[in-house]
Amino acid sequence: MRGLLSFYRGLCALSNRQTRRKTGIVGSRCGFCGTQSKTKPQPRFGLLFDIDGVLVRGRMPIPAAKKSFEKLVDSQGKFVVPVVFVTNAGNCLRQTKADQLSHILGVPITHDQVIMSHSPLRMFKKFHDKCVLVSGQGPVMEIAKNVGFENVVSIDMLRESFPLLDMVDHNRRPKLPSNPLGKLPKVEAVILFGEPIRWETNLQLITDLLLTDGNLGSPHRPQKNPHLPLLACNMDLMWMAEAHSPRFGHGTFLVCLENIYKKITGKDLKYEALMGKPSELTYHFAEYLIRSQAMERQWDLPITSLYAIGDNLMTDIYGANLYNRYLKERVTVKNPKAVMATATGSPAAVPQEQEETTDNLWESELALPSATSCKSVLVCTGVYNPNAEMPTDTTHSIKETVFHGHRDFRFDPALVEPDHIVQDVAEAVDLIFEQEKFV
Amino acid sequence: MRGLLSFYRGLCALSNRQTRRKTGIVGSRCGFCGTQSKTKPQPRFGLLFDIDGVLVRGRMPIPAAKKSFEKLVDSQGKFVVPVVFVTNAGNCLRQTKADQLSHILGVPITHDQVIMSHSPLRMFKKFHDKCVLVSGQGPVMEIAKNVGFENVVSIDMLRESFPLLDMVDHNRRPKLPSNPLGKLPKVEAVILFGEPIRWETNLQLITDLLLTDGNLGSPHRPQKNPHLPLLACNMDLMWMAEAHSPRFGHGTFLVCLENIYKKITGKDLKYEALMGKPSELTYHFAEYLIRSQAMERQWDLPITSLYAIGDNLMTDIYGANLYNRYLKERVTVKNPKAVMATATGSPAAVPQEQEETTDNLWESELALPSATSCKSVLVCTGVYNPNAEMPTDTTHSIKETVFHGHRDFRFDPALVEPDHIVQDVAEAVDLIFEQEKFV
Repeated sequence: MRGLLSFYRGLCALSNRQTRRKTGIVGSRCGFCGTQSKTKPQPRFGLLFDIDGVLVRGRMPIPAAKKSFEKLVDSQGKFVVPVVFVTNAGNCLRQTKADQLSHILGVPITHDQVIMSHSPLRMFKKFHDKCVLVSGQGPVMEIAKNVGFENVVSIDMLRESFPLLDMVDHNRRPKLPSNPLGKLPKVEAVILFGEPIRWETNLQLITDLLLTDGNLGSPHRPQKNPHLPLLACNMDLMWMAEAHSPRFGHGTFLVCLENIYKKITGKDLKYEALMGKPSELTYHFAEYLIRSQAMERQWDLPITSLYAIGDNLMTDIYGANLYNRYLKERVTVKNPKAVMATATGSPAAVPQEQEETTDNLWESELALPSATSCKSVLVCTGVYNPNAEMPTDTTHSIKETVFHGHRDFRFDPALVEPDHIVQDVAEAVDLIFEQEKFV
Repeated sequence: MRGLLSFYRGLCALSNRQTRRKTGIVGSRCGFCGTQSKTKPQPRFGLLFDIDGVLVRGRMPIPAAKKSFEKLVDSQGKFVVPVVFVTNAGNCLRQTKADQLSHILGVPITHDQVIMSHSPLRMFKKFHDKCVLVSGQGPVMEIAKNVGFENVVSIDMLRESFPLLDMVDHNRRPKLPSNPLGKLPKVEAVILFGEPIRWETNLQLITDLLLTDGNLGSPHRPQKNPHLPLLACNMDLMWMAEAHSPRFGHGTFLVCLENIYKKITGKDLKYEALMGKPSELTYHFAEYLIRSQAMERQWDLPITSLYAIGDNLMTDIYGANLYNRYLKERVTVKNPKAVMATATGSPAAVPQEQEETTDNLWESELALPSATSCKSVLVCTGVYNPNAEMPTDTTHSIKETVFHGHRDFRFDPALVEPDHIVQDVAEAVDLIFEQEKFV
């Protein structure tokens, strides 16, 4: 939370002294000017905002967003409740996204408040010193290093070292006999950040890694043991851009990889972890950041309620409801780990080998949430359109015969039912404040 | 067969006069030099040669190939039995492949003797005046026109006319609002020649065509009727190049397309036709060319036996055995069309709407073969290795749990059992001559 504080300090020039009261009412005095901000009750809830379709559309802010954020900060621009932004975007660093949001919303947002689809990777510490292949577009090498990986190789590095493997493009086939540039270390895990370009190259080399246990110099061998660990961020099958109809997302790439692996080996591809909404992992991380914000602000009362505001039934609503189900079951079950392994809808969505993952941070700190509920709030400023004559992607994606969620997330009508439907984010914030009697 | 004759005439300077005898023994006299070639009995059989792994390996001829072809031509370089070359390659014109073979084997081969995976497309006359999208690498536009299509559009033409559709590559997304270059006609069918590059682009635009009934300017609509006709050439899942392990072929691209379509719509993708070995269509076409060669040479006795020589159990042997099964069933059933629709293993491997395809040539001339059997002969100079310690792709591809054949071709152990296994193509020719008492 260092970033959050230092950002704010920069604005107010001097650090703030906070006065806590036993009543749970917090007042904040500016160390520089001595002004006392309007007091607010101590929040018992936190907010998770989706970005696209809720706060912005393309590059334009949604008008209701600015209005609602005026209510979320005090006169000094300090949040009066814990707030995180949860997006399935993954092609930039959290700091870049935080800067964009600060500019658009007119309030200071720090990188600690942003969860991108790849953000939970920083919790998988046991892989951070392993040699990992990263797949995706944009600054994926930089992002991988930023979330903690120390030994990263790219698809292009593999292509150069093993030039006989990528043969689909006739014009890129090697003209000369293979002459590996340098011996790369054995790859120990594969991190799928987002949809790459030249899918054939990534599909071929990732499949080769899975069938050679990370040794691309060896022939394919029948796999007796589980294949290399595979961690995937963002499983959105499609997303809405400017075209009439939704465009392929990373989930479509995963459909290809899963089915090629199944066709060649006869076995199911297994994920060590699936990140991004609606994965429970992402909500664990969001809850952890919200709890940390409250701790940093020295709000003693536990944050018990979460509200997730989004425009997409399959990601925002399904994810919030799935996490809510976990929180509810957790209250009645003694072993939270056991709940987490079943509440995702599939064991593949969480680490397979519990005994090996005890060094993952998310299983220690993250698995002890203070929240006991996570309510889903659907807005009508994005993908979801209550008046659409033609079924949109989202609405026709939730029938039992056509399920646009990921293979490892079962169809469940209850999970795509929002707790509230409101017009826009301003209405969402008003409703939540009212429900929480936070005025 | 004009090409075959003109090629030969070019070699012998003057046309040949042929003398036919009632005994079925044919002698050929050169019109220029007057020499009488050694007489041969009239053949009652034809040969289908696979190319890679049987006649050549990479760019090098297999030594046994030249030796066997010395036996297949008379002193004037004229074939003594009908011969066709059947390859699943598809990225060049038949003439180009014929020229390569002539050079390698030292005997004149014409384009009429070559069947590439796309060759049977010339039989689908009902699509020849339709607007078709072609997908693949190399001179696919030229190949499409060469096999009879008059109104062809490429993936790049679609991308330029509808720039908002291909969004996967962030760097190729349009910077400016859409400005279609020109109105393209409605696409009426899709022809998949071979694996393309940038699979994501082809997968996206082909899926868009299927979901908009060929009108890319429209949004996706739930498909009540069958989707656009889809014709695919070459369904090889993988192929052996210089790398240790097999590389992705067009079949892998089809796996992606089939599964994306299934995921989005909940329905199975259907093929109007699947060409290339082991598709029956390819063998129908081969038989037709063999029959035409015999007719051209004025060999009156019908060609009743076919021999297919190949190195791949899943394509050469499966395909020959499948066609043999059709020929055998045809003898006992009155309606050959009905047999053809069931012998492929799946209705999707042959045209779906029988009443609409009566203008397809293959259903008239092609469906009346003179052959009554097609024997499969496996050689050990290519993919198949009887002494391999590690299971190769081919051998471990034919278990019930792992089937590397196409989705529409059922696993059937009997179809991957060759009639004969020999060392090389020379041994294969000797065996066949012996069986046919052709000396």
